[in-house]
Amino acid sequence: MRKINLNDKLSQIHDHWHPRIVAELNDSYVKLVKIEGEFVWHHHETEDELFLVLSGELTIQFRDRDVVLHEGEIIVVPHGVEHCPLARGEVSMLLLEPKSTLNTGTERNERTAEAEWI
Amino acid sequence: MRKINLNDKLSQIHDHWHPRIVAELNDSYVKLVKIEGEFVWHHHETEDELFLVLSGELTIQFRDRDVVLHEGEIIVVPHGVEHCPLARGEVSMLLLEPKSTLNTGTERNERTAEAEWI
Repeated sequence: MRKINLNDKLSQIHDHWHPRIVAELNDSYVKLVKIEGEFVWHHHETEDELFLVLSGELTIQFRDRDVVLHEGEIIVVPHGVEHCPLARGEVSMLLLEPKSTLNTGTERNERTAEAEWI
Repeated sequence: MRKINLNDKLSQIHDHWHPRIVAELNDSYVKLVKIEGEFVWHHHETEDELFLVLSGELTIQFRDRDVVLHEGEIIVVPHGVEHCPLARGEVSMLLLEPKSTLNTGTERNERTAEAEWI
């Protein structure tokens, strides 16, 4: 049982769209990721996914609308719901999702990234 | 899918040691709680528990040592591990734990509090 300082961990991340694992509990991982630009549309078959914005402005695009989040704001994307994250500037965020979750959802493609521990 | 602003939710909490549910995903709840003073020693039989400090200084006492956390720091307390939270001033924190988790762990006592949605 060691504490995890989110800013210390974020300072070790120097790329975008490559989630890093910082903790695990109950079959889920806590991940940190920095993003900039637009991701790909995807959904997760069985996994709900939590986003917590740590800095920057995150837009989660849904098929029928956008939700814009800032520091200290959370959204849960339920399984089955198509979404596409978009960051106009750099965004740092915390993700919580089951260990089985692939960043690109049901498809592997050029944006698929395996998460490693930091 | 609505966003959740942690500060807005915290401003609705005017008591201590009474967790409120702000989101759910994958059989877990995200809770917010304000605490001050010392809790009771307890453990959770099967549930791992995540604490994220949002403000204040949180001490998690374990049987063999203390871990002191500040804003932006996380700790995961694995199931089975006895712990006792302690806050010398007021602490606001986010908890993530399975829906089955009771705040006092394996025992119901005068500190047991049911979490409600806010």
